[in-house]
Amino acid sequence: MKRIGGYRRARESYGLDDIALVPAASTIDPEDVDLSWELGPYQLRLPFVAAAMDSVVDVRVAIAVSELGGLAVLNLEGLQTRYEDPEEAYQLIAQAPPEEALAVLQRLYQEPIKEELVGARIESIVEAGALCAVSMTPAAAGHLAPLAQEAGAHVIVVQSTVASAQHRSSRGRVTSIQALCESISVPVVVGNCASFEAARSLLAAGAAALLVGVGPGAACTSRRVLGVGVPQATAIADVAAARDEYFHTTGRYVPVVADGGISTGGDVAKAIACGADAVMLGSALARAEEAPGRGFHWGMAAPHAALPRGTRIWVGTTGTLRQILLGPASVDDGSQNLAEALRTAMGMCGARTLREMHQAEIIVAPSILTEGKTLQFAQKVGQGRS
Amino acid sequence: MKRIGGYRRARESYGLDDIALVPAASTIDPEDVDLSWELGPYQLRLPFVAAAMDSVVDVRVAIAVSELGGLAVLNLEGLQTRYEDPEEAYQLIAQAPPEEALAVLQRLYQEPIKEELVGARIESIVEAGALCAVSMTPAAAGHLAPLAQEAGAHVIVVQSTVASAQHRSSRGRVTSIQALCESISVPVVVGNCASFEAARSLLAAGAAALLVGVGPGAACTSRRVLGVGVPQATAIADVAAARDEYFHTTGRYVPVVADGGISTGGDVAKAIACGADAVMLGSALARAEEAPGRGFHWGMAAPHAALPRGTRIWVGTTGTLRQILLGPASVDDGSQNLAEALRTAMGMCGARTLREMHQAEIIVAPSILTEGKTLQFAQKVGQGRS
Amino acid sequence: MKRIGGYRRARESYGLDDIALVPAASTIDPEDVDLSWELGPYQLRLPFVAAAMDSVVDVRVAIAVSELGGLAVLNLEGLQTRYEDPEEAYQLIAQAPPEEALAVLQRLYQEPIKEELVGARIESIVEAGALCAVSMTPAAAGHLAPLAQEAGAHVIVVQSTVASAQHRSSRGRVTSIQALCESISVPVVVGNCASFEAARSLLAAGAAALLVGVGPGAACTSRRVLGVGVPQATAIADVAAARDEYFHTTGRYVPVVADGGISTGGDVAKAIACGADAVMLGSALARAEEAPGRGFHWGMAAPHAALPRGTRIWVGTTGTLRQILLGPASVDDGSQNLAEALRTAMGMCGARTLREMHQAEIIVAPSILTEGKTLQFAQKVGQGRS
Amino acid sequence: MKRIGGYRRARESYGLDDIALVPAASTIDPEDVDLSWELGPYQLRLPFVAAAMDSVVDVRVAIAVSELGGLAVLNLEGLQTRYEDPEEAYQLIAQAPPEEALAVLQRLYQEPIKEELVGARIESIVEAGALCAVSMTPAAAGHLAPLAQEAGAHVIVVQSTVASAQHRSSRGRVTSIQALCESISVPVVVGNCASFEAARSLLAAGAAALLVGVGPGAACTSRRVLGVGVPQATAIADVAAARDEYFHTTGRYVPVVADGGISTGGDVAKAIACGADAVMLGSALARAEEAPGRGFHWGMAAPHAALPRGTRIWVGTTGTLRQILLGPASVDDGSQNLAEALRTAMGMCGARTLREMHQAEIIVAPSILTEGKTLQFAQKVGQGRS
Repeated sequence: MKRIGGYRRARESYGLDDIALVPAASTIDPEDVDLSWELGPYQLRLPFVAAAMDSVVDVRVAIAVSELGGLAVLNLEGLQTRYEDPEEAYQLIAQAPPEEALAVLQRLYQEPIKEELVGARIESIVEAGALCAVSMTPAAAGHLAPLAQEAGAHVIVVQSTVASAQHRSSRGRVTSIQALCESISVPVVVGNCASFEAARSLLAAGAAALLVGVGPGAACTSRRVLGVGVPQATAIADVAAARDEYFHTTGRYVPVVADGGISTGGDVAKAIACGADAVMLGSALARAEEAPGRGFHWGMAAPHAALPRGTRIWVGTTGTLRQILLGPASVDDGSQNLAEALRTAMGMCGARTLREMHQAEIIVAPSILTEGKTLQFAQKVGQGRS
Repeated sequence: MKRIGGYRRARESYGLDDIALVPAASTIDPEDVDLSWELGPYQLRLPFVAAAMDSVVDVRVAIAVSELGGLAVLNLEGLQTRYEDPEEAYQLIAQAPPEEALAVLQRLYQEPIKEELVGARIESIVEAGALCAVSMTPAAAGHLAPLAQEAGAHVIVVQSTVASAQHRSSRGRVTSIQALCESISVPVVVGNCASFEAARSLLAAGAAALLVGVGPGAACTSRRVLGVGVPQATAIADVAAARDEYFHTTGRYVPVVADGGISTGGDVAKAIACGADAVMLGSALARAEEAPGRGFHWGMAAPHAALPRGTRIWVGTTGTLRQILLGPASVDDGSQNLAEALRTAMGMCGARTLREMHQAEIIVAPSILTEGKTLQFAQKVGQGRS
Repeated sequence: MKRIGGYRRARESYGLDDIALVPAASTIDPEDVDLSWELGPYQLRLPFVAAAMDSVVDVRVAIAVSELGGLAVLNLEGLQTRYEDPEEAYQLIAQAPPEEALAVLQRLYQEPIKEELVGARIESIVEAGALCAVSMTPAAAGHLAPLAQEAGAHVIVVQSTVASAQHRSSRGRVTSIQALCESISVPVVVGNCASFEAARSLLAAGAAALLVGVGPGAACTSRRVLGVGVPQATAIADVAAARDEYFHTTGRYVPVVADGGISTGGDVAKAIACGADAVMLGSALARAEEAPGRGFHWGMAAPHAALPRGTRIWVGTTGTLRQILLGPASVDDGSQNLAEALRTAMGMCGARTLREMHQAEIIVAPSILTEGKTLQFAQKVGQGRS
Repeated sequence: MKRIGGYRRARESYGLDDIALVPAASTIDPEDVDLSWELGPYQLRLPFVAAAMDSVVDVRVAIAVSELGGLAVLNLEGLQTRYEDPEEAYQLIAQAPPEEALAVLQRLYQEPIKEELVGARIESIVEAGALCAVSMTPAAAGHLAPLAQEAGAHVIVVQSTVASAQHRSSRGRVTSIQALCESISVPVVVGNCASFEAARSLLAAGAAALLVGVGPGAACTSRRVLGVGVPQATAIADVAAARDEYFHTTGRYVPVVADGGISTGGDVAKAIACGADAVMLGSALARAEEAPGRGFHWGMAAPHAALPRGTRIWVGTTGTLRQILLGPASVDDGSQNLAEALRTAMGMCGARTLREMHQAEIIVAPSILTEGKTLQFAQKVGQGRS
């Protein structure tokens, strides 16, 4: 603990950029590495979850990611359920000049959600034989979760910036996570959390998986706007500790999904080493040719009417979903062939499975403006110019 | 304590950028959060104080901020009391080319202060039914404070870069803070301080509130010019500790107002979590349409004749005072809707009142050139280009 | 140890940029400093090893570096053994526009290796009377090492991103380092490693020298792509400790060669002070007029078909091999006259030999964006513009 | 102590940018602050020493600085003693295009030193009634020091990158510092040193003042080229501790002069607070209208024939010597009116004398890319463009 001043003490924390993995003395052939994990009754070949963001996942992407071995989450409160044909909305977002992008987002997300589209989107995914995960906010979960279950969704994701098993409001009770988990028969993934205590109470409430990450992501500005946030390496390790404690007590192993700030193979490997069982990918997949965002990316808090956080950013289109997840990479910046990068890293760390990777040696490495960062940063500055 | 070298030891310190807030396991509905605080006999609905800077506060802004629920401080040694009609001065400042801005400031502030304008400005504010706070330097306080009280000011602010209850000078005694507090019947806010000891002696001298902040602000260059300064998180926590000790001893609760380096909702939330009861806003409000600075901002040390510190900077005009304080935000960078941002952060931290927020969990978070900072910095570099 | 979160602990680590050398109270005339070291039966006058990269070493460079007193390593799996006349390949690489460079590299390295060229290149070096070192990957070593020995190579280097004395693969056994060292009669240099444990097992396997460095170099992006890497000062000191322990146990002193992130005289001096006996130079020598890369530099992982790491970068041509290694310097950035820089640094630290330099006082110095770095960085950003 | 790796331990160190000064609870009127100090038999009104660099000091500057109350050091191995009329040399340096500047410097400094000019320069300064200090390297001191003394110099400065009381060389003995101090009757200032041990031995050898600073300066690249350097706050505090110990033992108080990396009022105040009695100014004074460098600045290691360190940099011309040292400031960046800045800082820290300032409270403040640095850095990047 560090002393901030007066009586205030604070723990030190670490982002994924602040750590690195130490190669083991004994290594493993990457081809022998197993990347599979389990979410409730489902076994997934790849620990990659496409984020519940409109710029990343539509029905087509959900099906494609499932076929590649990962999981995609369709947001039930986004453009897909507000517009019968959302193409025009995407078009307007992509065409808006930078200074109007936020206003365009705010306007387009005022269109009400259509119940019939909720069902239709889910059915399209299920009928394609894909694993279907859909997300909603806690406030909407009481209404949308039963609808989604009825339509055949395999996994329900209840996601807000900060998830809480104990939310107090004078406006009457929001459906509690526990009540939801008990009333729904499919696995309920809950997030986001970023601390041992919060994770413990969400696990006790029945979460089937936990999303970890408050304030670390590129398309999210929680720390700037709200001051709230936990660097991701620390958040993952804290939540993983709650997960392990819960597993030792109950025998139920609940996967931890790192969400936010993960865009390269290195980020993935370090998140797994900190204790995650999978990673949620946002901007990394917004770069896919199949991504509905057309090279743009925005978070689901960006269109907020009164307190927008994050806005539309240009990430470009760099390759196919397959290239990004399974390679071969056509770029050298770590953003493609995430599976091979993870296998290679795990081999170097002597880990045959994701859970063995939880034991890899971590080192605190001076991260800021090391050579790589400097170049990366210089490029960003440079790109800002054109 | 760290060892600098030889016998020299130094404490580590933290700026608001070096910390973050950890969401609690138990959250609260932002609508149930109470942002009120008390300054002497006055209850204020919002913990926002408009800084005693010419680019931020004139009579009109003082009235408007009071109506919105905050407090504005009019500087009695600025343009408002030097010029019957200060519009021309503001015009000259706004029109000066960058290389002449400092000289223009230095020249305009050589105009003497007019006693009749001191009274007139205060009366305009009071007559509008607004809470009227006015500021002066310690050297001028013996003269100006009685004038201000007579004219009806509700709050007197005695402010210098470094406030001291024990100031030694061979040139004869400056009116002491204690003598001033005893001779004036309205609350006397004193600042700035940045340490436990200084705060303790100012509290004992009778300060009605303390301004915290030496060297952390954007329009202030104390650290560069003088080497003096304390990062704001540490300064607030130290002063808050003196406040708490004084409260436990005397039963008098003296609010702490964080002044300097606070421009986003995140800064506000973190300052409150460190122990502040309110925040003073400078550049954040200089961006308001109503701000007299016309998109420019400068500190009150900038026009110093012999040792100017800080100069005129361009902050732009981004929205109305109401948008900045109460929203809705039309930008996503955390600079608007500060009240909603603070309520949201407090809800996430499970704090119903500002004083409950003083217990929120703080974490030391690697601040420098994290993703957000990098982009922010890249933007600054980029803006420097045009 | 720092606590990352939950049960995860991590050691702090240091790059060469994070440390500096403290001058001793007692100094030595640089002319009295001895820079020699021993590799197996060979004594070398200079502790400089030209990296086994196609942009750095061809037959001509190998001979020139040997004549100057250092050692150059020719890569047996690069352009030199894939093309009878590799000039055209170099030309294509140098002429490729930036966006096509990676694809050109990937294509050119698909040409098969020719056994006859392996022998021919080695013979050309040996016949010139130079010390001949050649490198290969572990996977190719079973095949290439005997060929190289037969052709007269004096030193065999078996190099991969992460070397391991215990590599497990279901695809059948790769030739083990130990088996290789036993079957080959010339010294076998092994790398790269970055930890005490890995170094200890490679020493036990019979390595004649160890290459240290995983993820710290400018033309290598292991940390970004894989998350794996150890800052170089820590890696060198850890491996040197294993070397010292092995020496005290067995009496065999095995030199440690720092590989990666070393481009200035300061880097060289600090690497030696951390415990290295020599340094491997990549980009530093790619800048030589004699370098085959024509001002370009790329790592041997860059042409990887599925997961390229690093790409072609422009380093420019700044002087001759002699100027870079022995001076006189025509530039002032520390990139030339490395021998004199090292002698001067050793003199200041009171070290007469490389092994005395292992005892020089190190200090942890705040490295990031110190004046020098800032300027350096600003230049990079600036160069990015043109 | 931090563990770098293996058996290597290293102390943490701090630059002036890493610390800040905490205002005291009890302050002093800046007009009551006394800035005087003593060097041997001489009392100086200002703790400012103009650096022995050709871009900073010629005869005219030496006289002017002395009149203002400071001390200037004329380099006896620079242009002033190589050329009867050095104006042409300065002209050539100022006119050289950037890529030729280093070569021009190297060529101009090959002109031999003229004994008659050594005497003439000193006499010009002495005849003007100014305090005359002259510098030389240890290698030249045996020859030049007696000449200088004979010509009437009041202070001899023997300066090299790293001063040593015990220098071992097989080429025969360089005149030792101790022998020199014993043979010369005027005060001998020695430097540079950066550690307790080195300072202790130089004090024992009879130094009249110590110059502190190895590798921290803007026009010096010791850390980059040689790896050698100690951040200045730590170096000053270490040397000051040796000075204090020596004073307590012998009763002789030897002033410590901080040399390197000091360009703003904040740097000055922090250097004094760390234990310095005066500061040596290089680039800060190269900006003076009277400076011979014509807006350019270079260190005395820049023209080195074989291993140049640092080169000609453009610092511009911003004001007169008087403005820089005594104000009034016409800029707000802390580079002018250093005396008033120091007085103000000392007043805030409650220090009436320089030696009281040695007790000011220091805090470790996160320095890198704080708001100020970011802007400063952004400006540099910006300036790099034009």
